[in-house]
Amino acid sequence: MTKSNPGNFFEDFRLGQTIRHATPRTITSGDVSLYTALTGARHALFSSDEFAKAAGLPRAPVDPLVVFHVVFGKTVPDISLNAVANLGYAEGRFLEPVYPGDTLRAESEVIGLKENSNKKTGVVHVRTRGINQHGAAVLDYVRWVMVNKRDEKAQIAEATPKLAAAVAASDLWISDRLDFARYDWDLGGSRHAFEDYAAGEWIDHVDGMTVEEAEHQIATRLYQNTAKVHFDAVMQAGSRFGKRLIYGGVVISLARALSFNGLENAALMLGINAGRHVAPLFAGDTVYAASEVLDKADLGRVGALRLRLVAAKNKPLPNAAAAKNAVGEYDPAVILDFDYWAAIPKR
Amino acid sequence: MTKSNPGNFFEDFRLGQTIRHATPRTITSGDVSLYTALTGARHALFSSDEFAKAAGLPRAPVDPLVVFHVVFGKTVPDISLNAVANLGYAEGRFLEPVYPGDTLRAESEVIGLKENSNKKTGVVHVRTRGINQHGAAVLDYVRWVMVNKRDEKAQIAEATPKLAAAVAASDLWISDRLDFARYDWDLGGSRHAFEDYAAGEWIDHVDGMTVEEAEHQIATRLYQNTAKVHFDAVMQAGSRFGKRLIYGGVVISLARALSFNGLENAALMLGINAGRHVAPLFAGDTVYAASEVLDKADLGRVGALRLRLVAAKNKPLPNAAAAKNAVGEYDPAVILDFDYWAAIPKR
Amino acid sequence: MTKSNPGNFFEDFRLGQTIRHATPRTITSGDVSLYTALTGARHALFSSDEFAKAAGLPRAPVDPLVVFHVVFGKTVPDISLNAVANLGYAEGRFLEPVYPGDTLRAESEVIGLKENSNKKTGVVHVRTRGINQHGAAVLDYVRWVMVNKRDEKAQIAEATPKLAAAVAASDLWISDRLDFARYDWDLGGSRHAFEDYAAGEWIDHVDGMTVEEAEHQIATRLYQNTAKVHFDAVMQAGSRFGKRLIYGGVVISLARALSFNGLENAALMLGINAGRHVAPLFAGDTVYAASEVLDKADLGRVGALRLRLVAAKNKPLPNAAAAKNAVGEYDPAVILDFDYWAAIPKR
Repeated sequence: MTKSNPGNFFEDFRLGQTIRHATPRTITSGDVSLYTALTGARHALFSSDEFAKAAGLPRAPVDPLVVFHVVFGKTVPDISLNAVANLGYAEGRFLEPVYPGDTLRAESEVIGLKENSNKKTGVVHVRTRGINQHGAAVLDYVRWVMVNKRDEKAQIAEATPKLAAAVAASDLWISDRLDFARYDWDLGGSRHAFEDYAAGEWIDHVDGMTVEEAEHQIATRLYQNTAKVHFDAVMQAGSRFGKRLIYGGVVISLARALSFNGLENAALMLGINAGRHVAPLFAGDTVYAASEVLDKADLGRVGALRLRLVAAKNKPLPNAAAAKNAVGEYDPAVILDFDYWAAIPKR
Repeated sequence: MTKSNPGNFFEDFRLGQTIRHATPRTITSGDVSLYTALTGARHALFSSDEFAKAAGLPRAPVDPLVVFHVVFGKTVPDISLNAVANLGYAEGRFLEPVYPGDTLRAESEVIGLKENSNKKTGVVHVRTRGINQHGAAVLDYVRWVMVNKRDEKAQIAEATPKLAAAVAASDLWISDRLDFARYDWDLGGSRHAFEDYAAGEWIDHVDGMTVEEAEHQIATRLYQNTAKVHFDAVMQAGSRFGKRLIYGGVVISLARALSFNGLENAALMLGINAGRHVAPLFAGDTVYAASEVLDKADLGRVGALRLRLVAAKNKPLPNAAAAKNAVGEYDPAVILDFDYWAAIPKR
Repeated sequence: MTKSNPGNFFEDFRLGQTIRHATPRTITSGDVSLYTALTGARHALFSSDEFAKAAGLPRAPVDPLVVFHVVFGKTVPDISLNAVANLGYAEGRFLEPVYPGDTLRAESEVIGLKENSNKKTGVVHVRTRGINQHGAAVLDYVRWVMVNKRDEKAQIAEATPKLAAAVAASDLWISDRLDFARYDWDLGGSRHAFEDYAAGEWIDHVDGMTVEEAEHQIATRLYQNTAKVHFDAVMQAGSRFGKRLIYGGVVISLARALSFNGLENAALMLGINAGRHVAPLFAGDTVYAASEVLDKADLGRVGALRLRLVAAKNKPLPNAAAAKNAVGEYDPAVILDFDYWAAIPKR
């Protein structure tokens, strides 16, 4: 009997169970460099210690998406090794900022279990928390996945959690230190402030980024995400896609980096409302992105934009509203529909 | 009307205009690791804190080419987003050394504007300065690019700057701390000192390096250079090359890393006299390099070599002098002709 | 006469000769990030400063394989530039732990020289030491390579060293600080302790990792290993393989990272007993791994496992014992047979 981890099947989970995930991770400036090099991220707040100090922070914080991917990666061996599909995210909040040198670990609580009618799979909801070396939460989010059952006859207690459609603006967490009074718009990359964005507005991010196998593998390993579908070409040759799948988090990060062009000052992601990986991305594909402003909230010291980040492959979406047609179907090029909150300076 | 940046066209520039570029960048040891991993750079001075301390410096400085690429990258969204060609470099001087932890920003002054006779493009000269967190200049250079006009009929004030053919040896900047009295030639990689090189000498750097799409994309994003031609395979399929172009700075760095073999101790680049990207490089190509010693200057504490770094693709240039034939034409394999100064210890 | 390094040929070596290798290297957290990103390494001890502190160390040490590759890389220009084959390793011991910020240099003593009967090549044995900035040894190992002769008629003094079949458990070096009394098995990744492993046991590591050209080139350059066979596709097109060879150290690291799954807590490599690169690995191949427990040793505060790490390409080895058949021949898929000691907590 080998000692390697077979992963949890649907019936291995229990409502209320808490799982402490393996491999805590000290985040370093090396991780930040790699993230920049793998995505093209350009937000001044995460790129420059001086810029961050001018905004009241001790140094440049780590891009919240790095935090998300690292925390997510830790959960994979326990939650989604036998997953058929990653179904969604909700109620994501970025809390204490993470700086190079901080050490993150992750815990998940099982908050939902629901068998599918075919009895071969079930849906598992977990609330995952990223926690730093001081015990403070840095991230809190719900995700749900469809997981294989080992035994069709297995039965366990079930429940489906109630999830908010979006994080309420009043629940967004902003560091008390953050202060954009001395914000340098030139260094930020544009003059566009909170006041300049309107709900319903679409922004075409113009640029495209072609992804190579080496790039998504390097990124996904950086996050210590071990899902085989991203790495094993021999196994994947026998899958329905016939090739390696790119980790959805890579898609989110590429689309978000592209969105700099038009959302330069909306650096700080505050919350994740929802996210759907509409179609898979493969090496050789080119990612394009557009954003829709869904909502705005004045948080006092800063503004917040609720943004819908839509990514497409191999075809720009010039009229981004075309991402869905009249009957709610996505354009076949669409790969991601991601709903989040970001802070932005007021003028 | 989308908020994304369309870039400046020829007639958007004004003589004397100063542009403060976006996204300041704290350089870290992560950037240094990536530079080593992407180029194969091996100069002891940039690789070892102990070696640098023995040369009077507080720790290993960042390779000046990293500084060049980062500063250059910042200028792209403002200067060359609508460029047809990057035409040349001149009067480049590396000033205050950059150490991990330093934060760089960039400013450019428009010093030349000259419409081409076809009225569709014009040549823009800018003098760009890289500036650290103390306000000290770390790099100063001129580059000129051919930029598209938006409107053929637009007219603006024109001027063409006078540029030096090379940086005078007396204008090269050397840190007062630098002291090679205790130089360890074994650790440096060879016994070749200033005295051993002669003007007119050619050095064949022997080794070759094949470049992959993932490698040049990772490098170019590390420098936060956003020129689409390097990243968007879909767009490039419709270009005259039909594929992604490798950023010229990647070529310079690969050739320079290859030049370690024969120029081991000439680590510290002091100035850039001129540079021409003779032909494009594409993924899958293999880079070879040779150097010609153009001049020598005894700077007192250290020597300086003026070097011509010639790179070729897919074919070694064993007789490097063959890079140009009798009528001044380049060998078709040549991709780079780069003229620079580097410091080297005296015996 | 060009100044580039032609490398040493067999007759250039002398018994007892000590070679100080070039390019000392300060190891940084950037190197650690890249190692994680290129291999998928997940051992908590090297990933988390907090986890390492709980084990008595000042912060997370650098994975011993990073130390091995960096030290090995320094020896290449002097020892194996004209090598036909890397034949073996023996008597490897990891000594003083290496932390980010430490600077390593390498020295090799020639301890064996033996001409082959064809007079065209000879076998060179070197004992290589990695040394930190305090002069303390961090690694000591023997390797031997087959090196071309320049001149068939050249004759030099010969000797063949006696090498131990394995490092004795009593010679393994453990930091006095190391203390697993507060070991967190959840964060470590499994409950498997020293007591749970038995000599003769095989562990199938299940996962597979496909390697891209960009990945092995980036890794090999990170170690400043300059062997042309890994980088020059034009030259390699004329070789018997017709393509670039992946550095054997990349194979060791990938197999070792895969072995996390089943050997989660055996993070700290203590010694290298032997290693054979059974067949070459090329880009596009997928690496699988299995481990055999060869021996166990109770070192008091910690346990040690002597492990045989077998890697195969493009085919999992579910019954890993099939790596060799009854007459001692390897399965044609096998690429690596590596014998090492690792520390593991006791319960």
